[in-house]
Amino acid sequence: MQSLSKVAIIGGGVIGGGWVARFLLNGIDVALYDPAPDALAKVTGLIDNAERAYDQLLGVNRPPKGELTLVADIETAVRDADFIQESAPENLALKQTILVEIDRHAPAQTLICSSTSGLRPSELQTGLMHPERFLVGHPFNPVYLLPLVEICGGTQTSAENKTRAAALYQQLGMKPLVLRKEIDAFIADRLLEAYWREALWLVKDGIATVEEIDDAIRYGAGLRWAMMGTFQVYRIAGGEAGMQHFLSQFGPSLKWPWTKLMEVPELDEEFIELIAGQSDDQAGDLSIKQLEHIRDTGLVGFLKVLQKMDWGAGQVLGDYEAALDAARPATDFDFHQPLPLLESIVKTDWIDYNGHMTEHRYLQLFGETTDALLAHIGMDAAYLAAGQSVYTLETHLRHLKEVAQGEQVSVTTQLLGLDSKRVRILHVMTLNRTGDVLASAEQMLMHVDTSAGSASEFGGALATSLSTIWAAQQHLPVPEFTGSGIRALSG
Amino acid sequence: MQSLSKVAIIGGGVIGGGWVARFLLNGIDVALYDPAPDALAKVTGLIDNAERAYDQLLGVNRPPKGELTLVADIETAVRDADFIQESAPENLALKQTILVEIDRHAPAQTLICSSTSGLRPSELQTGLMHPERFLVGHPFNPVYLLPLVEICGGTQTSAENKTRAAALYQQLGMKPLVLRKEIDAFIADRLLEAYWREALWLVKDGIATVEEIDDAIRYGAGLRWAMMGTFQVYRIAGGEAGMQHFLSQFGPSLKWPWTKLMEVPELDEEFIELIAGQSDDQAGDLSIKQLEHIRDTGLVGFLKVLQKMDWGAGQVLGDYEAALDAARPATDFDFHQPLPLLESIVKTDWIDYNGHMTEHRYLQLFGETTDALLAHIGMDAAYLAAGQSVYTLETHLRHLKEVAQGEQVSVTTQLLGLDSKRVRILHVMTLNRTGDVLASAEQMLMHVDTSAGSASEFGGALATSLSTIWAAQQHLPVPEFTGSGIRALSG
Repeated sequence: MQSLSKVAIIGGGVIGGGWVARFLLNGIDVALYDPAPDALAKVTGLIDNAERAYDQLLGVNRPPKGELTLVADIETAVRDADFIQESAPENLALKQTILVEIDRHAPAQTLICSSTSGLRPSELQTGLMHPERFLVGHPFNPVYLLPLVEICGGTQTSAENKTRAAALYQQLGMKPLVLRKEIDAFIADRLLEAYWREALWLVKDGIATVEEIDDAIRYGAGLRWAMMGTFQVYRIAGGEAGMQHFLSQFGPSLKWPWTKLMEVPELDEEFIELIAGQSDDQAGDLSIKQLEHIRDTGLVGFLKVLQKMDWGAGQVLGDYEAALDAARPATDFDFHQPLPLLESIVKTDWIDYNGHMTEHRYLQLFGETTDALLAHIGMDAAYLAAGQSVYTLETHLRHLKEVAQGEQVSVTTQLLGLDSKRVRILHVMTLNRTGDVLASAEQMLMHVDTSAGSASEFGGALATSLSTIWAAQQHLPVPEFTGSGIRALSG
Repeated sequence: MQSLSKVAIIGGGVIGGGWVARFLLNGIDVALYDPAPDALAKVTGLIDNAERAYDQLLGVNRPPKGELTLVADIETAVRDADFIQESAPENLALKQTILVEIDRHAPAQTLICSSTSGLRPSELQTGLMHPERFLVGHPFNPVYLLPLVEICGGTQTSAENKTRAAALYQQLGMKPLVLRKEIDAFIADRLLEAYWREALWLVKDGIATVEEIDDAIRYGAGLRWAMMGTFQVYRIAGGEAGMQHFLSQFGPSLKWPWTKLMEVPELDEEFIELIAGQSDDQAGDLSIKQLEHIRDTGLVGFLKVLQKMDWGAGQVLGDYEAALDAARPATDFDFHQPLPLLESIVKTDWIDYNGHMTEHRYLQLFGETTDALLAHIGMDAAYLAAGQSVYTLETHLRHLKEVAQGEQVSVTTQLLGLDSKRVRILHVMTLNRTGDVLASAEQMLMHVDTSAGSASEFGGALATSLSTIWAAQQHLPVPEFTGSGIRALSG
């Protein structure tokens, strides 16, 4: 398979710049031609975005970044390029002129791909000396993150070159979708455009604002679309009876005035069978039940991502959790016993390849227990904002029994020692179902002045609360395993 | 604010059953009326789905589950209900009959909400004695997970009752969207229907299969819709010049044959200003740059969720990472030194309220280092499948310096001891930029027979590799802090 080392990008706007970033971060050198005076600044901003995103996205090391050169003309950009992506403005005559220029100077075997959102490749390739190596490779914004690239050849494009392009895009981490037929706007933009026309009518007719229209999607159906298209979603909605059932149930509403523009294909028996058959192929071996679980796992994951961002549907979830939490009766602790600070269910994504909760999730729960203790003794946002906090110096974790997903576990906490700057604590995690001890964590916590970055004394409320708890707990028996290190092996 | 204790659900299909689950899991008792013989079985399946999802979704404890009663008629369901949700089939005459029956027996103040996807509330409330308490509350599948509920009143619905309904839905963790005007199919389903009509034409005209059409969304624009609607997405695509620029740039394509159905509102100056102004309101204080970062953070999060599921765009990411990893030159370790087993960037979502990498992420990286060691000495999928694995018995973590997001860190590993069943190791994490030691983890690992659940001897390849490394490393200096426990406090 061909491997790219130097590509030419013609046009450095939002799309062209996104291509520059994707190629560079795949270790490929890029020659960029863009006559705009601020081209380099704009592209640099996009590359920064892309690097930040890839740092978060990838669990493996990237190849060393490729080198970017801004060149003065198309000829310089393409003459030794082994791949060319054109992303000029959406204007047929302009694109044709640029493509002729590219075609004249590029090596005859080099693929020339256009990012056009909807112009037909057959029209774009008119006038090229080597039209067989021209095709559309239509990406989506942000190009460095969204995998989809629609591949559409014109009448003169060779089948081999479509395959070559698909393989090259795939190497960049993309999902090539090769079109069967040439059509204006390909597939995705036709769907987006239909949606967009209806959205514009809703604004025009004063039914809803742009914000309300966006909200009508991102809090609902939009969450599903990140994972499944509408056909798969409707297959599930049809239940075990499947797509045929769904179409017969919801077919009639296609004739109701549910959109501004109304014409639809006749849902006759033949057409229903075509769709139902294709839907079966798409689902493969997956039952409706399995598809439901996949859908729900994805939705839960997306909602949790959005909750961390405090955005959209995740904001709703955050408010809901806060309300649930506030509605719980306040806990009144008996300080003469270890404090029951945490209850949790073992989540599916905490499970490792051995089928049990993975190591660091134990520490996550023990860390949340420490946070609950600190909150209980009065460490709040104001305390942190004043430059005071509590850091963990050391942790000694002991794993005694495995625990599986879905189990309910509890953590209690006992103070083992206290001085003016440090507190030594012991967390013990048990399985609610059996009472078995699963793990323990002995921790040394230190109060810090975060601006000075050094140890400091516990502040008023914290010092008082800790002393009260310590006075009550210091006579509790201390488990014999505390205080000892990990033994040397004699073998 | 009203708080619900008993609701009536009329109709237990995919939507009605989803409502049942959402109410029960919010601690509210439900009386369900559904004449289908398998109603209870179907609803039970949905409740199971919902409980599984909520276990994963919520970081706080749920209230105790409400009680479900299947009742024999509508009267029994509604006579003492303090909220009623009707989810009968999408048939105007049938729904009218059911609603009259509900209205006759329900307490006069109780809200009656219909789940209809598109029938007008004014038509549905015809013939009710108390039409002012009737409205549409239109949810999305799965009802127990998707937050959106569209609220649409008819001509006889009181404004107060729309507000009451919105507040009640919000208590269930939902996002109510109150419509300004009554219109067939409300907002979301009009957008979905426009998209769906175009999708049906694409299949009918033989342009693409249902799978290709779904792929054209879920690998691209669909990933954005989980977070932002089309207006916000296009605002960002317009760049710093904003919505006005975007509309003037892409306005012309609305006149091109990019959809089967073509009519669009005239994009005159007044209309462009209306949209641009509403888009400014929607964005609030957020700049394009900030919106880009929010968008990218969400996309990265969604892609990682999908990668864990090995589904859709996440499958593409997984394949891409595997290919990047395979392309790296193989590492040849010098066994006479601690083994450089891990390199990582500190991710944004690993940061805690103190602004540093949170405790359990250290253990995550040390755990990944242990996995890298085990992979290096020959523990692979076949080894695990044969019922053998290595568990961690104990970990002693020491935190020496904080580390911020975006930093590059490395972990090296030294063997401290080895016998036939156990290996004692020391991981040390350093900051690449300065060489400072950030943390260490001393661990005792034990080889286990996973079916017997007991210690066993290291198998052939593992035993040999470990002996080789131990032979080379046992003369390395052993840091003095190893082997000791967490000290008692004298205070």
